[in-house]
Amino acid sequence: MTELGLAEAYKKVRQASIDICQPLKAEDYVVQPSVDVSPPKWHLGHSTWFFETFILKPHARHYREFHHAYNYVFNSYYETVGARVIRTDRGNLSRPTVEDVYRYRSYVDSAMADFLKDDPEPEVKELLVLGLNHEQQHQELLCTDIKYILGHNPLFPAYGINPTEKVIEKEAAGVVHIPAGIYEIGFNGDGFCFDNELGRHKVYLHEFKISKNLVANREYLEFVEDGGYRDFRYWHAEGWDWVNSKGISAPLYWYNMNGKWMHYTLSGLQEIPPAEPVCHISYYEAAAYAAWKGVRLPTEAEWEIAADHFKWGKRWEWTNSAYLPYPGYKRAAGAVGEYNGKFMVNQMVLRGASVATPAGHSRKSYRNFFHPQHQWQFTGIRLAE
Amino acid sequence: MTELGLAEAYKKVRQASIDICQPLKAEDYVVQPSVDVSPPKWHLGHSTWFFETFILKPHARHYREFHHAYNYVFNSYYETVGARVIRTDRGNLSRPTVEDVYRYRSYVDSAMADFLKDDPEPEVKELLVLGLNHEQQHQELLCTDIKYILGHNPLFPAYGINPTEKVIEKEAAGVVHIPAGIYEIGFNGDGFCFDNELGRHKVYLHEFKISKNLVANREYLEFVEDGGYRDFRYWHAEGWDWVNSKGISAPLYWYNMNGKWMHYTLSGLQEIPPAEPVCHISYYEAAAYAAWKGVRLPTEAEWEIAADHFKWGKRWEWTNSAYLPYPGYKRAAGAVGEYNGKFMVNQMVLRGASVATPAGHSRKSYRNFFHPQHQWQFTGIRLAE
Amino acid sequence: MTELGLAEAYKKVRQASIDICQPLKAEDYVVQPSVDVSPPKWHLGHSTWFFETFILKPHARHYREFHHAYNYVFNSYYETVGARVIRTDRGNLSRPTVEDVYRYRSYVDSAMADFLKDDPEPEVKELLVLGLNHEQQHQELLCTDIKYILGHNPLFPAYGINPTEKVIEKEAAGVVHIPAGIYEIGFNGDGFCFDNELGRHKVYLHEFKISKNLVANREYLEFVEDGGYRDFRYWHAEGWDWVNSKGISAPLYWYNMNGKWMHYTLSGLQEIPPAEPVCHISYYEAAAYAAWKGVRLPTEAEWEIAADHFKWGKRWEWTNSAYLPYPGYKRAAGAVGEYNGKFMVNQMVLRGASVATPAGHSRKSYRNFFHPQHQWQFTGIRLAE
Amino acid sequence: MTELGLAEAYKKVRQASIDICQPLKAEDYVVQPSVDVSPPKWHLGHSTWFFETFILKPHARHYREFHHAYNYVFNSYYETVGARVIRTDRGNLSRPTVEDVYRYRSYVDSAMADFLKDDPEPEVKELLVLGLNHEQQHQELLCTDIKYILGHNPLFPAYGINPTEKVIEKEAAGVVHIPAGIYEIGFNGDGFCFDNELGRHKVYLHEFKISKNLVANREYLEFVEDGGYRDFRYWHAEGWDWVNSKGISAPLYWYNMNGKWMHYTLSGLQEIPPAEPVCHISYYEAAAYAAWKGVRLPTEAEWEIAADHFKWGKRWEWTNSAYLPYPGYKRAAGAVGEYNGKFMVNQMVLRGASVATPAGHSRKSYRNFFHPQHQWQFTGIRLAE
Repeated sequence: MTELGLAEAYKKVRQASIDICQPLKAEDYVVQPSVDVSPPKWHLGHSTWFFETFILKPHARHYREFHHAYNYVFNSYYETVGARVIRTDRGNLSRPTVEDVYRYRSYVDSAMADFLKDDPEPEVKELLVLGLNHEQQHQELLCTDIKYILGHNPLFPAYGINPTEKVIEKEAAGVVHIPAGIYEIGFNGDGFCFDNELGRHKVYLHEFKISKNLVANREYLEFVEDGGYRDFRYWHAEGWDWVNSKGISAPLYWYNMNGKWMHYTLSGLQEIPPAEPVCHISYYEAAAYAAWKGVRLPTEAEWEIAADHFKWGKRWEWTNSAYLPYPGYKRAAGAVGEYNGKFMVNQMVLRGASVATPAGHSRKSYRNFFHPQHQWQFTGIRLAE
Repeated sequence: MTELGLAEAYKKVRQASIDICQPLKAEDYVVQPSVDVSPPKWHLGHSTWFFETFILKPHARHYREFHHAYNYVFNSYYETVGARVIRTDRGNLSRPTVEDVYRYRSYVDSAMADFLKDDPEPEVKELLVLGLNHEQQHQELLCTDIKYILGHNPLFPAYGINPTEKVIEKEAAGVVHIPAGIYEIGFNGDGFCFDNELGRHKVYLHEFKISKNLVANREYLEFVEDGGYRDFRYWHAEGWDWVNSKGISAPLYWYNMNGKWMHYTLSGLQEIPPAEPVCHISYYEAAAYAAWKGVRLPTEAEWEIAADHFKWGKRWEWTNSAYLPYPGYKRAAGAVGEYNGKFMVNQMVLRGASVATPAGHSRKSYRNFFHPQHQWQFTGIRLAE
Repeated sequence: MTELGLAEAYKKVRQASIDICQPLKAEDYVVQPSVDVSPPKWHLGHSTWFFETFILKPHARHYREFHHAYNYVFNSYYETVGARVIRTDRGNLSRPTVEDVYRYRSYVDSAMADFLKDDPEPEVKELLVLGLNHEQQHQELLCTDIKYILGHNPLFPAYGINPTEKVIEKEAAGVVHIPAGIYEIGFNGDGFCFDNELGRHKVYLHEFKISKNLVANREYLEFVEDGGYRDFRYWHAEGWDWVNSKGISAPLYWYNMNGKWMHYTLSGLQEIPPAEPVCHISYYEAAAYAAWKGVRLPTEAEWEIAADHFKWGKRWEWTNSAYLPYPGYKRAAGAVGEYNGKFMVNQMVLRGASVATPAGHSRKSYRNFFHPQHQWQFTGIRLAE
Repeated sequence: MTELGLAEAYKKVRQASIDICQPLKAEDYVVQPSVDVSPPKWHLGHSTWFFETFILKPHARHYREFHHAYNYVFNSYYETVGARVIRTDRGNLSRPTVEDVYRYRSYVDSAMADFLKDDPEPEVKELLVLGLNHEQQHQELLCTDIKYILGHNPLFPAYGINPTEKVIEKEAAGVVHIPAGIYEIGFNGDGFCFDNELGRHKVYLHEFKISKNLVANREYLEFVEDGGYRDFRYWHAEGWDWVNSKGISAPLYWYNMNGKWMHYTLSGLQEIPPAEPVCHISYYEAAAYAAWKGVRLPTEAEWEIAADHFKWGKRWEWTNSAYLPYPGYKRAAGAVGEYNGKFMVNQMVLRGASVATPAGHSRKSYRNFFHPQHQWQFTGIRLAE
């Protein structure tokens, strides 16, 4: 991107966060109904804090911090940058208000606009691009967290007039066959990527087959109705404990109302569309479904090699790969180096993208990751064998 | 009261709740930073729900429920009236919004105004008076919960321009001597009282002395600085566990900042005024302070008998009496019968009233009660021996 | 008692603890299946530690401590005497072995026998008598803890050949009427009593009636079968939470096996005898039963005044009195002063005695106390109104 | 093995479990000081239960179960075979006694000896071999659990006269270089292996270096003294939480006593030998140490390919590989199929063997696995880059 391009890109990405929040009431910005969910106003403040902390404070002459306490309030996991708020406490803070947060955004955006009039150093540009990608990640979380907040309210309010979660595409048939051999995976291009996608490297894959389509609600319902949630044989031991201790018996947002299966969507409660891909399932559920079918989930390398042969991008797809460093992985220096490497334990890789992923923020080599029990992202199942 | 009087009283009490919330931002109405604190919008909804549920629905012809889900959302501990929300979850609900709650209040108030144009049956009037006293109790909780919400925010926002928590009175000196004998305690009058104040009954009291004044911050600070919080000898075993597991070393809202003792007040952080009564202490702290002084707390009977001899009403005063039924106590029939009796275990009685108690809502026989670890009410210490 | 008498009393009381443990296997001495239960070997060591710590170490010339680490292992709640083991951890200690503990007892008993040959100072004699009463309290706990350990084992082993928990007495009929008036309660004699029974003082009692008999299993079963455990109206709010969170539906040790009510006894699983007093109930259950009957539990003062008019001594009886200091209560100085006063919050008083209470260790003024949820003592119900 | 061989092998393996327990007191067999540790008598019973359940009951004519309740008591994670005891409860069971468990072993061993006189079917032989390997795994756990039980006792008792945990070998110097290429890993032979080692398959490895020696106590101490446990930069986010919430500041069993580093060994408390490999560290600690050195842990494939070039077998070595199925992994049918696959999430692979691994139970392809926070196995660090 040129400098002009960067300033434009900055405005566009920053505006997108505000657009996502436009249908919300002030109260919706505040609550945190689960430890994994953050209040929308926190997302708005935290993504702003990134630019203030890593670009404006160290690089913009004469910049004056908006508020000394915001570093404490909007920091997240960057241990390098001072004490952080315990994550479960985010939902207890009524101040700064939503209006304060928007003023914080305007203040920082205005300072950034001034700052970008001059030609920043290359490493600052890099930080800026990282900051924009960081904000796009939080845009996806804004969507999933807003869905969680509204979908766990007994009034089941709709998010807005016409949001779509639908994956409108004709179901593809059949499977892709990939022969054994040495392949290369990892980022390969000259745009932005996260450090965890580097460096591109060889892997040996055995012959495998992978479905062209995602598992549909109709198919998943067969598993549910066959008693899949009550038969330990399909589950990891920790998945079985999760099912039983949490009383899980269906994907998140599914409700059996008077014998009819409904689910909460951003448009409110609706009947479950049978042909749409199943969504909001944990890794445990994805793996149990695959075990029930007698097949398995693909590894992330298999997925990446086969990805040109099927449509993807509307649902994150659980793989059977743990989130671990690629050969030769190097953590970036400084605070931004905490971005990825520190999470490389106890999480599983998801590949693809979802309806909530900002346009331009997905690529074949993207490595998303969540803990195996998490359901609140837009997650689906592709089978392999 | 006459019927006109009731309608007027209703308007006045209902307006007082709104007045208390006037300085709040929408976000302040939503959060629940502790399991014991409720979001202000819940208090506003719950006190409204009382009138809708116990008066309008059963007694007002043609009344139509405002919203079918509000019974679920704004119910509290009345097990008789349907499923209740788990209390810790109140802070997760962004909807109904603050505006919705105010519309709910207007709707119910309007229906109540119509309803009160006719002469209600005596038992309905009784319920109305109970409802108003119930709302006044929640007005006090609104004050203490708002203080908790703002006082646990890292920005320490002030509640408003000129709120007062001060107990502006010249310190009285000396003690009251009460001789041994048979006395009578319990409600004695023809206005309203709660069922737990009935029936008036005889008690035998041994001779005792009781202070005319409450313990001042200056005096309590001596206890703090003498290491009182680090010496188990002054504490109940469960109090000592509480001190250690929670890391308690001073009253709630006290902060030692660079060697100076400050406390959070509704006007923001301020220096602790030495002559003011100590406030926001638990029963454990009150009892430990008394033990350190070599004296004790009064029983509730002693307090009630001596109360005409000292000033009271600006601080709830911990007694050494457990909250138990008076001789001949009878629980009221129906849902309102759950009001008091079910709490008569594991709580201690407080007598008096506080700066947050609505005018006209205090009397000598009033029995307030909280668990021994609670600090967030406006609580103080009066010594006896 | 004379000195000879004291030495004899010492031997007799100390032997009684060993007799209680005689039917146990080594493994039974070690486990702690609940935080409220202590391993039998801990009881044996702790009661020995009392004599070593408070008598031999300070008063017996040339006495050498048995093992320096035992003070840490066998201390309990005496904060004055060094760090204590976290109570929940007692069940994790395989060493000292049972044999070690018996050697510790022999060593201390031998030193005590030598020590008592001389005439100890009066205050040492007092400590000795306290120590013997302390050991008798632990003898009762030994019985109830052993029952808990064996009764929570899936093999339901019997404790011994002919232990008796039965209260073999013809059911008395009717009630005692006590007129209103000033009465005196508290210890009145010249033998031993605990500090919490002092000083004797006046109370005013209103007229009341109290049952001559305890509630029988047959009667309690009616409550169970009437759905008493599923109707919140009979329960304290905290009792109702306890019932639901713990899934309580009957007294401890009761099992409904193929439609027949059985209970675990020290002789193994047996049918529940209908005419025997109900046993192993919590205060919450006692109070709920009384509420279901439309009556109440007596206060401890009522119990003490009426006690000469009925038989008691085979079951601890829950009263409706919280455990609080008597007027003029003074904590003893030094470590033994922690004995009682520090527990005077959140517990309820029980009066009487049980089949597990050592002979000579019961009296009318005895104030036993437990938390309201505890079921594992031999506890029963006497009704009043 | 021939049938004679099998009967001999059976006797030998079974005797080894008894030999390990020989120095124990009865009390040591009973306790469970951590949820991850099982009481020794449980290990002895559980490994016996395996033979009774999978061989004798289904295959030995006329076999009569030893005790109907033992299936419940000694079952572990085999969900197929009836209800299991909650794992945390194992330490609450005083019965069956140690003597009972030894009688159970004798009874089953005697039935097995009879059974093996005839020529069992091949699939029964397979089960027998699996059962013996299963018992050997529990022999290793017996050692580590006994160390935990004794090492967490304030008396720090020694396990026996001359147990050795020492890895007496001259430190090797230098590193092994392995060139990039396609390699094969997985079990390759005709003896026994677990299903998780199958099938042998190709992997592509990039060029790497791996140390010939394990990290020594001396080297690890530098990390400790450089503040490694107080600098979040070296830790996974979950590792950092673990360090802080558990207060970890050194390997398990390390104590800094008056400035000197000691550790608990099976011979009691001793000075830490500087040249010995560091032991009892978690994956988090191993990874943090590697990060501090600027290198990394090997993957399990790297380890297996390089293993012929260095000495191993005295310490389990953490790898940076998550425990996941090999390509083409198939779970065995029936209850024994639960053996491995269900644990393939959230655990890390360890390679090698330890001083506690039974002779003949280690091989290059063996995949051991534990959660990343576990320290109580004999675990060490080998570095790679």
